Amino acid sequence: MSGWLTIAGLGPGAESMITPEVTHTLESATDVVGYLPYVERVPSRPGLVRHGSDNREEIRRAEHALQMAADGHRVVVVSSGDPGVFAMASAVFEAVESGKADWRTLDIRVLPGVSAMLAASARVGAPLGHDFCCINLSDNLKPWLLIEKRLCLAAEADFAMAFYNPRSRARPEGFAEALAVLRDMCGPDRLIVFARAVSTDEEDVHVTTLGEATADMADMRTLVIVGSSQTRRIERSGTPLVYTPRSAP
Amino acid sequence: MSGWLTIAGLGPGAESMITPEVTHTLESATDVVGYLPYVERVPSRPGLVRHGSDNREEIRRAEHALQMAADGHRVVVVSSGDPGVFAMASAVFEAVESGKADWRTLDIRVLPGVSAMLAASARVGAPLGHDFCCINLSDNLKPWLLIEKRLCLAAEADFAMAFYNPRSRARPEGFAEALAVLRDMCGPDRLIVFARAVSTDEEDVHVTTLGEATADMADMRTLVIVGSSQTRRIERSGTPLVYTPRSAP
Repeated sequence: MSGWLTIAGLGPGAESMITPEVTHTLESATDVVGYLPYVERVPSRPGLVRHGSDNREEIRRAEHALQMAADGHRVVVVSSGDPGVFAMASAVFEAVESGKADWRTLDIRVLPGVSAMLAASARVGAPLGHDFCCINLSDNLKPWLLIEKRLCLAAEADFAMAFYNPRSRARPEGFAEALAVLRDMCGPDRLIVFARAVSTDEEDVHVTTLGEATADMADMRTLVIVGSSQTRRIERSGTPLVYTPRSAP
Repeated sequence: MSGWLTIAGLGPGAESMITPEVTHTLESATDVVGYLPYVERVPSRPGLVRHGSDNREEIRRAEHALQMAADGHRVVVVSSGDPGVFAMASAVFEAVESGKADWRTLDIRVLPGVSAMLAASARVGAPLGHDFCCINLSDNLKPWLLIEKRLCLAAEADFAMAFYNPRSRARPEGFAEALAVLRDMCGPDRLIVFARAVSTDEEDVHVTTLGEATADMADMRTLVIVGSSQTRRIERSGTPLVYTPRSAP
């Protein structure tokens, strides 16, 4: 029996946001590999081995998955959201490139998912309805100065911005610095959305402005969206709607 | 009976990429509204009226949907991909903001979908695995100079870039100009992916470099991805893998 490796996105949390393509692929897998809380989202069943690991182990996890596929297993590497956005797909391809020659001949596929950014945007309206960028605020794998440079250029381009990993355990002060840079560049009235754990029981969505935003409004499960200069708020009962118009002057 | 309006994403094309949440919502709708080819993706059934319209009619279509919901209908506005990315969600909120006061009290929801950008990225590997931006290259609703400015700043920020609507009917020479700007800024060896109609029978994916890319490699159904300076190609039989590593120097 020949093995394969699929890297699949489980969406932001709710089962109803997992695509049928991903569900069917999981049903034919022998092994599921990933960060423990994501692996636990895949129902246990006879014939399926679930390999959960810690979240700083991406390359070792990818190598393990590739070797199991090379040994004939049908392996699904799971990420939350979309696997291609700050998740396991890049880690697997890094491992392919630096790993054994026969890993390149494996049947490797990526199945997209609803990313945290799209789920967060949908919850408040359509803040990413015009040109936008998406930045990982963690400086585990890149220098902080590069993050700051990207924030400034994104503000100059007047992109809406989606931020992953606003608060890393290693450097919690980073997000306060990012907010300060953005406040300088975009002014205090710019809209900002804190969307935590969207589509789960712990969902918490909050709309405010850069002038009112503080770093403790985000934790590791929060997706942050900062609007462009054109982003608007429509008041209504409950959380206001936030959207960016299709046109720009 | 009280009406509602949901703006839902049908994903890039394959039925297996439509989320169960969207499928279930469509099953309880009385009316489906959207661009004709997208409306036709929703199966016809007794009790469901499908309202297909032309693709320059977004605001009129949004107003029609809002009024039907206000009249008690259960209305789903459909977009392909994700409805919040260059699609109907922003158009609906523009219509809400400028429209009748009672439209603001409607039950309006957005259901995210797998965007064309995520599906295209998954097909070739993980080119959006590090910081990236997403730009609509159509100048129907913004000045061409703003697009050029954003291309330059995105290149300076060393973002990977996903481009929607590379070739508009109104101004087909725009994409050639965009390629020229990118070649200037990023050099001829930069990787570029043309991903047409991903997940449909007409899927066609092509990986090349900015030096080799020509404007006729894209049409209105093509999603274009340009890598960052770090984006890499792994050769293997068939289409090469393209990915951007998680780390940057």
